[in-house]
Amino acid sequence: MSIRGLSIIGIGISQTDANASHAQSFRAFDPTQNRELEPVFYNATNDDVEKAALLAREAFAITKKLSGAQKARFLRAIADGLTGAKAELVEWSNRETALPIARLEGELVRTTSQLRLFADLVEEGSWVQARIDASDPTRTPLPKPDLRSMLRPIGPVVVFGASNFPLAFSVAGGDTAAALAAGCPTIVKAHAAHPATSEIVGQVIAQAARNCEMPAGIFSLLFDSGHEIGMALVKHPYVKAVGFTGSRRGGLALMQAAAARPEPIPVFAEMSSINPIFITSGALKERGSAIAKGLHGAVTQGVGQFCTNPGLVLLPKGEAGDEFLKEFADLMQSTPQGTMLTRGIRDAYAQGVKQRAKTASVTTHTHTEAAGNRAGAALFETSLAQLLGNPQLSEEVFGPSTLVARYGDVYDLVLVATSLEGQLTATLQITEAELPEYGDLLDILEEKAGRVLFNGFPTGVEVGHAMVHGGPFPATSDGQSTSVGTRAILRFVRPVCFQNFPEAALPSELQTLNPLGVHRLVEGR
Amino acid sequence: MSIRGLSIIGIGISQTDANASHAQSFRAFDPTQNRELEPVFYNATNDDVEKAALLAREAFAITKKLSGAQKARFLRAIADGLTGAKAELVEWSNRETALPIARLEGELVRTTSQLRLFADLVEEGSWVQARIDASDPTRTPLPKPDLRSMLRPIGPVVVFGASNFPLAFSVAGGDTAAALAAGCPTIVKAHAAHPATSEIVGQVIAQAARNCEMPAGIFSLLFDSGHEIGMALVKHPYVKAVGFTGSRRGGLALMQAAAARPEPIPVFAEMSSINPIFITSGALKERGSAIAKGLHGAVTQGVGQFCTNPGLVLLPKGEAGDEFLKEFADLMQSTPQGTMLTRGIRDAYAQGVKQRAKTASVTTHTHTEAAGNRAGAALFETSLAQLLGNPQLSEEVFGPSTLVARYGDVYDLVLVATSLEGQLTATLQITEAELPEYGDLLDILEEKAGRVLFNGFPTGVEVGHAMVHGGPFPATSDGQSTSVGTRAILRFVRPVCFQNFPEAALPSELQTLNPLGVHRLVEGR
Repeated sequence: MSIRGLSIIGIGISQTDANASHAQSFRAFDPTQNRELEPVFYNATNDDVEKAALLAREAFAITKKLSGAQKARFLRAIADGLTGAKAELVEWSNRETALPIARLEGELVRTTSQLRLFADLVEEGSWVQARIDASDPTRTPLPKPDLRSMLRPIGPVVVFGASNFPLAFSVAGGDTAAALAAGCPTIVKAHAAHPATSEIVGQVIAQAARNCEMPAGIFSLLFDSGHEIGMALVKHPYVKAVGFTGSRRGGLALMQAAAARPEPIPVFAEMSSINPIFITSGALKERGSAIAKGLHGAVTQGVGQFCTNPGLVLLPKGEAGDEFLKEFADLMQSTPQGTMLTRGIRDAYAQGVKQRAKTASVTTHTHTEAAGNRAGAALFETSLAQLLGNPQLSEEVFGPSTLVARYGDVYDLVLVATSLEGQLTATLQITEAELPEYGDLLDILEEKAGRVLFNGFPTGVEVGHAMVHGGPFPATSDGQSTSVGTRAILRFVRPVCFQNFPEAALPSELQTLNPLGVHRLVEGR
Repeated sequence: MSIRGLSIIGIGISQTDANASHAQSFRAFDPTQNRELEPVFYNATNDDVEKAALLAREAFAITKKLSGAQKARFLRAIADGLTGAKAELVEWSNRETALPIARLEGELVRTTSQLRLFADLVEEGSWVQARIDASDPTRTPLPKPDLRSMLRPIGPVVVFGASNFPLAFSVAGGDTAAALAAGCPTIVKAHAAHPATSEIVGQVIAQAARNCEMPAGIFSLLFDSGHEIGMALVKHPYVKAVGFTGSRRGGLALMQAAAARPEPIPVFAEMSSINPIFITSGALKERGSAIAKGLHGAVTQGVGQFCTNPGLVLLPKGEAGDEFLKEFADLMQSTPQGTMLTRGIRDAYAQGVKQRAKTASVTTHTHTEAAGNRAGAALFETSLAQLLGNPQLSEEVFGPSTLVARYGDVYDLVLVATSLEGQLTATLQITEAELPEYGDLLDILEEKAGRVLFNGFPTGVEVGHAMVHGGPFPATSDGQSTSVGTRAILRFVRPVCFQNFPEAALPSELQTLNPLGVHRLVEGR
């Protein structure tokens, strides 16, 4: 597949060279080699935004009526196309992100599985939550109408590719899969850190869409090295929802722009989380070494570039805790340096670690300077009082760094949990025997996080029906949603009620004979 | 029941007289008699807000763990209490709102039915959308964890009483019923136009809560004649969601305040809708007179003070349309004047009607000046070009007023529908034979409204499982929600996932043996 460096404006129409030649350009960057890559990518223009939005608006008239079977075929065609492009995708994404080949191969499987999971979901069809309340013409004082409602697609969706998952959270990632499954045309703003990977995936989607005879505007992919095009997309009146995975600052900017529109729209931004781990003395005693090893893996794998990376560890005071900390510190110290995704991320990490090391009452256990775009693991320790008193210590430092605080008893943990902002995950490393004592803590963790773990580690986000990858602000912009798992489709739909409609004018899911055989709530049952 | 004029801060604790004596006060107003009523009501203070919020926060630790059966018992106790206070409630609400006795009796039944519907819902329990994905310890490269998720209450909720439904959308109205059913402590800001009605309902809820041994902070009721207390509630860090029914300006102010919080929270505001009615020539021919009578009823009943009041009617050009308009205008002209809910609403209506009458290219068919707090029906006509060109003509005039525009063909209707803002409802008065021709129009109406009606009229909002009383902005602040029907509970919950939890620590709905027998999605089935 040739990389052209041009935005894809609708599945049949590329940004013209003439148009692109007027635009600013940028290049992909190889963080391992620390050098720019060929070819040049041209920033999309406001004109491209207009075209993509108009095409999406037009396509919505068709995509909202696609059957589950049609959408499933399209999603599976994308998955097949991605599998077919595996060699190129893994090569390019490895070059652009420095993520290891094995990880990228796994991420590709995750991406295609995710597309297939949504294909299965919409093919089966019950996800639309069809509800039927029958009429009662004899009711007094007024006859009761026939009411039928179901979830319908919200309209064109803008998705922002994420830097840390070039496949699974980018052009054909979870947001795109959920939006297309819902029946929403999708405009992706490619992450500028992996444009060639993005273009390959974009071409795969466009080809799949052509093969499945989808309308031109069902998919567009826009390049931009800055923020202008993304903002223009979020502000465009034809756009009805936004999916984003990235920094708190970036997510906040999108939330504000969306709220300030003449017609505000929902922004589903997955932003910032420190994923606290609470370790009990019982757990330490039972399996301290195993926890140290597991925690080390969770903090450092992928150079710590996961949204579920644990950035705060609560460890008991006393000897067992001292021993654990020594073992954990040794593991952190001996961690090989790794190349980070981008220079920007590496600089932000270096800056964050430096600042933490300088913070009063913070002890540095490990912190190595690294050359180029590489980063080393960092381990800090602070007091409970300092943790509770200094909000900066509860901020995310994106990378292989974590902060340990020592506690005395379960009341300390309740205090810490209460002071936390919203989190994607919260983990209790505990024994079953201790559970009754930690009930209050569990209660608070449930309020603070989208996913609460009993033992285990939060990295590794299963794509399934029960997953919640969400959580109260600032973990996400909308703590009532998830960006992973089949529930994620609910972000891009709205309920619509049809009153006294004739059968022929009803969507199949609401017709009396239930031709699709979906599960429905009829008279509340 | 004695009306004390004091806020209820937690179910056992009233605002103290000492506290109240420092506060500003206001009186209820009888719009029919045009005079102030006894007793005095004291505005709540910021101190009261603090207390109510703290109590609610404390209560949440208990309310979030209430079983469906416990919540059902509480909701039914409120319903019973309201029925028991029927005489007082109807008398006071009639005095404070000028709504007719029969309407208020009906509204009380609607209010208690709504509470009982939510009681049934939470007692049955399946509404929590429990999902279980089983573990697979043998999976490679990584074992699959056990994941179980369900909807959990979001936290303390603030509800604003609405002026136009002193019972069904006020202190124990739909928002409160949904929030309590979800397990959320609820703080109601009483609407200052019916404080005595609000206090009676508040006392009923407090008594029911005491009888059911609920925690003190599960319910508070705050009075304020201004906006300060409502704003303080929305900004309070312990408050996690807001329910509101009222004006676009009021809803926007709450949306902005909630978005500007350090932790933004969702605001579910039901605001502004003109509920367009599209009448086809076939429908006119088949049943023109019936439509004229039905439309007249929908526009003028309750002095037009419904959010689903039709404010725009698209009528075919030509003789049949002329005849319809004449008949409809006669009905509008002969409509008795009625007393509006408040002086403010009456003044806004008079102002809105006056402005519309002065608008270029608007013909006034009926428009009578009315004395005191009374208002007469108003009927205006405009051209399609004017309607499309002047956004003011698509704004809501709250009261018994509507605007007719004449159209040539279905393309005109598509144009109008496309130009509309989001609506609670959109209605097609049509014959089945015409349906194929109007497919494009139906498609657009589905995008614009929460509920689309085939024939019928939009006033009369059934409380059931399939109802959607919502719609894209500005009909509501969140077009993905409904404020009426059992789906309304979804506004006050968030999904939480439990990973690898031992049975004993799981909510009953997620335990393997399913002791409550709720419907669950297990492995996607």
